[in-house]
Amino acid sequence: MTAPTHLSDRSRAVRSSEIRDLLRLAERPGVISLAGGLPDPAGFPLDALAAATDAALAEPTRSLQYSATEGDEGLRQLLATRHEALTGRPTSPDQVIVTTGSQQGLDLLARALGDPGDEVVVEDPSYLGALQAMRAAGLRTTGIPVDGDGLDVDALEHHLTRAGGTATRPVRLVYVVPTFQNPTGTTLAPDRRLRLAELADRHGLVIVEDEPYAALRVRGTAPAPVASLSPRTVSLGTVSKTLAPGLRVGWLIGPADVVATVVRLKQAVDLHTSGLCQAVVRHLLGDADWFDAHLARLREAYAARAVALRSAVVEHLGGRFEVTDPDGGMFLWATSRPGSPALDARSLLPLTIDAGTAFVPGDAFAAGDPRRWRGAMRLSFATSSPGQLRDAAARLARAVDRLDRGATTAGARPVDLAG
Amino acid sequence: MTAPTHLSDRSRAVRSSEIRDLLRLAERPGVISLAGGLPDPAGFPLDALAAATDAALAEPTRSLQYSATEGDEGLRQLLATRHEALTGRPTSPDQVIVTTGSQQGLDLLARALGDPGDEVVVEDPSYLGALQAMRAAGLRTTGIPVDGDGLDVDALEHHLTRAGGTATRPVRLVYVVPTFQNPTGTTLAPDRRLRLAELADRHGLVIVEDEPYAALRVRGTAPAPVASLSPRTVSLGTVSKTLAPGLRVGWLIGPADVVATVVRLKQAVDLHTSGLCQAVVRHLLGDADWFDAHLARLREAYAARAVALRSAVVEHLGGRFEVTDPDGGMFLWATSRPGSPALDARSLLPLTIDAGTAFVPGDAFAAGDPRRWRGAMRLSFATSSPGQLRDAAARLARAVDRLDRGATTAGARPVDLAG
Repeated sequence: MTAPTHLSDRSRAVRSSEIRDLLRLAERPGVISLAGGLPDPAGFPLDALAAATDAALAEPTRSLQYSATEGDEGLRQLLATRHEALTGRPTSPDQVIVTTGSQQGLDLLARALGDPGDEVVVEDPSYLGALQAMRAAGLRTTGIPVDGDGLDVDALEHHLTRAGGTATRPVRLVYVVPTFQNPTGTTLAPDRRLRLAELADRHGLVIVEDEPYAALRVRGTAPAPVASLSPRTVSLGTVSKTLAPGLRVGWLIGPADVVATVVRLKQAVDLHTSGLCQAVVRHLLGDADWFDAHLARLREAYAARAVALRSAVVEHLGGRFEVTDPDGGMFLWATSRPGSPALDARSLLPLTIDAGTAFVPGDAFAAGDPRRWRGAMRLSFATSSPGQLRDAAARLARAVDRLDRGATTAGARPVDLAG
Repeated sequence: MTAPTHLSDRSRAVRSSEIRDLLRLAERPGVISLAGGLPDPAGFPLDALAAATDAALAEPTRSLQYSATEGDEGLRQLLATRHEALTGRPTSPDQVIVTTGSQQGLDLLARALGDPGDEVVVEDPSYLGALQAMRAAGLRTTGIPVDGDGLDVDALEHHLTRAGGTATRPVRLVYVVPTFQNPTGTTLAPDRRLRLAELADRHGLVIVEDEPYAALRVRGTAPAPVASLSPRTVSLGTVSKTLAPGLRVGWLIGPADVVATVVRLKQAVDLHTSGLCQAVVRHLLGDADWFDAHLARLREAYAARAVALRSAVVEHLGGRFEVTDPDGGMFLWATSRPGSPALDARSLLPLTIDAGTAFVPGDAFAAGDPRRWRGAMRLSFATSSPGQLRDAAARLARAVDRLDRGATTAGARPVDLAG
């Protein structure tokens, strides 16, 4: 085409993200990447997947034909039963829709519950993919700070009270990753979950509770899900961290009116999620004993990794950075200690790649002013072995040392993460 | 939740569709349905799918891990090569994105190329799922009539000339199913394809060429794809009609700037299409000899079905209806002959289901005034055997006879297809 195509105004609101470019970065040979949010491929249950695939192909009219937009009936029943056990709230399959990964749940919810210009409250920092889905749908995102106990509910209340009085349209949505948050690894404390539920009731908010990591708890007891505290909750789940991301099977569980609207939208968006992949997931989640044993193996592997990375980062960089100490998930969050030399993580990254490792600069997750997170790094312990993680921490420390001694990034490989 | 949730204004623009409800209708025992657009499940290549699934699971970092939003590199290369052979235009993998079915291509294109209120020109009647995707994205659809040679390009030119002079924003998109159109089965004639390409150039339009059925040609020679005539074309393809819809693998091939924008949006929408399903499709399309032989078998089966249904409908109802005579695809389109008693297909449907068959009333596909298609029916020959199709035609004739003799629908099973 000689002339460039006219592209929509709204498409300009969506920029390419770090996640995409980091997938490439992480592929360079020799780099032990702490950047990607990729689960450990050694945890993919290949034998069980092969058996489940055979079983799926043995029921071709269910797995291979066009099927219902809301998802496989057996899988929805399974998910409803599990949700009921987890939350203590009666849950019918009508409250469940299977989505093409939980990312699609975010896109569909943003469109079902928000109109362009509406405001959604998110954690700051927050999961980049959620910010992108909200912005692609034309929503305005407002960040509320996160501390060691998760979302600052006092700040949320202050914002809601103020916004409720002045904004032309009230806030309708709050998005949280309450357990082992991405990127900080923190968990929303039980008393804050209660406050969040009360605020949702009082202000007529829908809470979107995104729980991709909750099954990867390596110590401690899980607090009650927000969905158990407020019926105004929509829960997002996925098998991406427990079985395999390549299946692209997630789910959304919430009030029946929300789910019915999401189903109508999904019909226009991709008709339904892969029946083959849904059947595979139904067979694997349906064998509860196998799945529990599989999760126990995953947790053991992740526990060793979390300890290895955190202790090595504390050893090499503990005087320079504060590092969160999560009870599970995939991520540590390191922030420059007050009084340390000012650090710009974007400038550090090229030196880090030169040293043979990688991380995601904190400002990539900013929901508000990106300068707030300029000195922060997200470090993933999910993809590499304990030995590799210790090496990566030592490499990272060398890069920090070079930066502190005044190394410039000239001569280092150029990295344009903003894409 | 006691109070209903606040749902977005835009979600109200998307109503539930016939397709969804018909999937249920088609499941009633004893009904030989001509309603669904479902491919013949006997055509699912189960052995080849099993072998391809094994091969996919043998490369787990490719099929099971998070992967690139634009799709599997090998599959994109394959699709680019096939497109180049089909269109005679050099095609790079950068012009290809793998989508979650071609339905997702429609959603992403509508959002990438149109802003709310923008106008898209479609065939009248047209594929309902396309109309839904456009409307979910806030676009206004304008229908241009279809006759036996496909889209009436004179009417299109007239509309563009008039609209260009008066509308606040010019038309940017034209959506066509040029080969074995859904619902009419007609194919856009070669001279009209040229005219369409010229109009696109002159008016700066992007043509969306949706080709789910082109591989199911049972006679005659394929006209040149619109993509071979205009670089302002985006082509949509899918394996839903050739391998299995449950894989949810489609693709979009077009100008690199459009594809890059669609990729950015897709990242926010579902990250990427199932890696497992992409790997399965790569293995099956990659074995060109096997795939060609498989298509030949499908074409033979569909040819027998097309002949069986059309000859039986002509035999039983030829005096009452005109029936299209497509060279392939899945659908016949029957319209009340001028001079016949006025017929309301929605009133006919309950009697038809009583008689043991089903169809989709024509007005379900209306892009403009639904009354225009009140006397029309879409009849699918894809899902049933020749013998069943002949029975279905006889049953349909009995229902028409009952309606013409003044039967009311009282006592018949209630059918609310509008959902």
